[in-house]
Amino acid sequence: MKNYNLLKKHFKKINNLSHAQSMLSWDEAVMMSEGGASDRQESIEEVASIIHELFTKDFLEEYFNDAENESLNEIDKANLREMREKWEEKRILPVDLVRKQVSAHLKCESKWRQYRSENNWKEYSPFLEEIFNLSKEEAQIRSEKLGVSEYDTFINQYSKGFSTESIDLVFSKLKSELPGIYQKAQERQSLENYRKIEGKFPVDEQKKLGHQVMKALGFDFFRGRVDKSHHPFCGGVPNDVRMTTRYSESDFTSSLFGLIHETGHGMYEQNLPYLDDQNLLSQGRSFAIHESQSLLFEMQMARSNEFLEFLYPLAKETFEKFSADQDWSLNNFVRTNQFVEKGFIRVEADEVTYPLHVILRYEIEKGLFDGSLKVKDIPDAWNQKMKEYLDLDTTNNFKDGCMQDVHWCFGGWGYFPAYTLGALMSAQIFNKALEENQNLKESIKKGNFKDLISFLRERIWNHGSFYETDFDLLKAATGESLDSRYFLNSLKSRYC
Amino acid sequence: MKNYNLLKKHFKKINNLSHAQSMLSWDEAVMMSEGGASDRQESIEEVASIIHELFTKDFLEEYFNDAENESLNEIDKANLREMREKWEEKRILPVDLVRKQVSAHLKCESKWRQYRSENNWKEYSPFLEEIFNLSKEEAQIRSEKLGVSEYDTFINQYSKGFSTESIDLVFSKLKSELPGIYQKAQERQSLENYRKIEGKFPVDEQKKLGHQVMKALGFDFFRGRVDKSHHPFCGGVPNDVRMTTRYSESDFTSSLFGLIHETGHGMYEQNLPYLDDQNLLSQGRSFAIHESQSLLFEMQMARSNEFLEFLYPLAKETFEKFSADQDWSLNNFVRTNQFVEKGFIRVEADEVTYPLHVILRYEIEKGLFDGSLKVKDIPDAWNQKMKEYLDLDTTNNFKDGCMQDVHWCFGGWGYFPAYTLGALMSAQIFNKALEENQNLKESIKKGNFKDLISFLRERIWNHGSFYETDFDLLKAATGESLDSRYFLNSLKSRYC
Repeated sequence: MKNYNLLKKHFKKINNLSHAQSMLSWDEAVMMSEGGASDRQESIEEVASIIHELFTKDFLEEYFNDAENESLNEIDKANLREMREKWEEKRILPVDLVRKQVSAHLKCESKWRQYRSENNWKEYSPFLEEIFNLSKEEAQIRSEKLGVSEYDTFINQYSKGFSTESIDLVFSKLKSELPGIYQKAQERQSLENYRKIEGKFPVDEQKKLGHQVMKALGFDFFRGRVDKSHHPFCGGVPNDVRMTTRYSESDFTSSLFGLIHETGHGMYEQNLPYLDDQNLLSQGRSFAIHESQSLLFEMQMARSNEFLEFLYPLAKETFEKFSADQDWSLNNFVRTNQFVEKGFIRVEADEVTYPLHVILRYEIEKGLFDGSLKVKDIPDAWNQKMKEYLDLDTTNNFKDGCMQDVHWCFGGWGYFPAYTLGALMSAQIFNKALEENQNLKESIKKGNFKDLISFLRERIWNHGSFYETDFDLLKAATGESLDSRYFLNSLKSRYC
Repeated sequence: MKNYNLLKKHFKKINNLSHAQSMLSWDEAVMMSEGGASDRQESIEEVASIIHELFTKDFLEEYFNDAENESLNEIDKANLREMREKWEEKRILPVDLVRKQVSAHLKCESKWRQYRSENNWKEYSPFLEEIFNLSKEEAQIRSEKLGVSEYDTFINQYSKGFSTESIDLVFSKLKSELPGIYQKAQERQSLENYRKIEGKFPVDEQKKLGHQVMKALGFDFFRGRVDKSHHPFCGGVPNDVRMTTRYSESDFTSSLFGLIHETGHGMYEQNLPYLDDQNLLSQGRSFAIHESQSLLFEMQMARSNEFLEFLYPLAKETFEKFSADQDWSLNNFVRTNQFVEKGFIRVEADEVTYPLHVILRYEIEKGLFDGSLKVKDIPDAWNQKMKEYLDLDTTNNFKDGCMQDVHWCFGGWGYFPAYTLGALMSAQIFNKALEENQNLKESIKKGNFKDLISFLRERIWNHGSFYETDFDLLKAATGESLDSRYFLNSLKSRYC
């Protein structure tokens, strides 16, 4: 095991630097003084370039080849597989291309900030085009090496093992069913009485409630913390998870459900395996699997009648005096937290319409990479699909249309599908947990999450990156391949 | 300038990593979850070891030799001198010794925490002895290379250009005069009426007052912030200064004067030169000079009658309602903030007795390195000197005696003198400012610090590490060599 151990040591070094990178990025979003931005950028880039150097050391090739012949157990074999994959992924790109990308991303993101607020697609699009061209170059290199389509090389970075072929299969089902579900949800809502609970919800009280809920769910505050940031995220490292949220004094649910979402990410991180001697298996399987955990918490569990029944008295006790004259009945509380309404903005979408926002982006990205669409055609394609899927018009409204997301600025093609694949997997996994434990709903209603947490720990979290693909992990966890009917059924039973 | 520029680029790389190191340490003290400690330690050590590798690259020798022959301006020459010195300092120690030291420091610090609280010198001393032996080894190597005494190699790390010879000269003067000044201060105090202002001072109000005072002094909040930590310090980087403080609800002055002290450090950092393209001149000259700035703020300025007159209405307005039935007269406010009282603990000492705590440590350290004292003799020597200088008995009281400081645990010999050299320089610099500006006291009384800040910026801050020693900088700033009479006069006029 000589070479395997040398590799492990080398990757531990990389891990130690990733720790630094992760904390510097968290600090940048949460703590950094404005004036420190440019020095911080240089420091983060320096650490990144040292990590890149470590990934491309000449001696690694020999280590890898020799390690393959060493006698390894299952765990070490899986770790070796992950190390090799990371290594191949990094070393395949010419340093020059990577450098050009980094600088183009920074430029595009700053242009995006400016031109989005000015609703100016014309000035913005050349920068996006540059990003696309560099991404195309990257995709060609990867595609040749991996023997899959260009767009698939991107998809696989966020959803391990997925491809346009497997995605088309599930997305077509969603496309055909979701509009009907949305229609029915609207009809049902129009017959119901509900009144949004409005008032002034002091941030300190919101923090207290958030903390109380996270504690109940089992978040380990010895190995993590929560702070405020402009955009909520879950960063840090498994033994020191850094969750962030933001607060609106007029609406406590947006922060609270955001926090529950991030708690899903955070608890996945905290329960990864081999944390005493971290290796590449001590990582979430993929972004899609990560999202399946956060959405399982936020959507499958926290918007269920049972969880809302648990949450109801806590919220009422915390906020009643700050929102007098409101309908604080349980029924009203549930209805307002299971509300469906289409809109232009993906990040504000409910769980019924969200996948349609994703499918629209997925189809555009696919078109860009197979050549049937040019960057300049994006606004028209966007408008046409928005009309078709959600009956909304985005003509000349770039700000709330194709310029609303930052993802493409950093070459994040193939990222969006992972959100919806995560939603589909979350429903399938939650369904399995319910199936195996008839008392689960009752426990959730009582604020007892132990069984659910044990299930997730045993079936998902503790495996880290042991299984090679999302499919393998899902199959091991639920006994089945991905099936969109669990997601569709959960929507139907909640909203129809 | 080819080789000089290559060196500059290489040191910029080191600077980028020091940025990471600095922020990881700040985060460790202020933000880190307890469970993250061990991963953090590994990450910080990794960054440190990469910095060490960069300092000891083989190609540097050639760069340095060739750069010496390049045509450079004054600034570049000084920067080259600093780079060379840092490089020589780092590469001279065998990697093995450094590694042994790092591990011994960590062990000693943790033992110190335990045994100090148990007042157990016997169990602790072997660990301290190990530190001393490793330091002795280091000192021998440096002494041979630099041609100065072993102890002087340590002194020079914190007070640039100082030696036991120059320190003995000023410390002997302090030793002969301070006891008399203390005596007179006590007599004067015993004749005066004063009552400590006690009450409940809410942390939020303390924060507001602290912010108000820092703002008035000119701290740049665009390039810095203040947070809470167990031990106050000033960390971060010049463009993002991270100051910390702690709050006691029963005493607002300890936090406030601590904050003013750190503001002195912070503003020195924020006003260093060449921050757009940082080089080694963008660093404070030495720890002693740094301390001269913080003590100039805290002691020379903030405990002056004029500053207290400026502070008085602000404090009164902020806290009067939280401390009713107190003597809020200006005279009482001034007297309680210029109070002198001897005690066992250095960090709690007033400005009159503080130097005696330092001299005691300095003499013990000197004895250890010239062989006249052994580690096992420290408690007796401590007790004997404590009796002589402050008439206090520390027999068997190790906790409040020779085990009170952490400095020796990390091999920080030669560190303590810098505190008092800083105090001496602060008085000399402040005196010069007063001499050149007859209205300065009047301005301070009105809360106008512009002239003082301009003076410090021009004479000290903007020079960074351009001058080779503290002496050179002090001479350039005040026109004179170090003279302890400014410090002694300032004490006499304030307390006698």
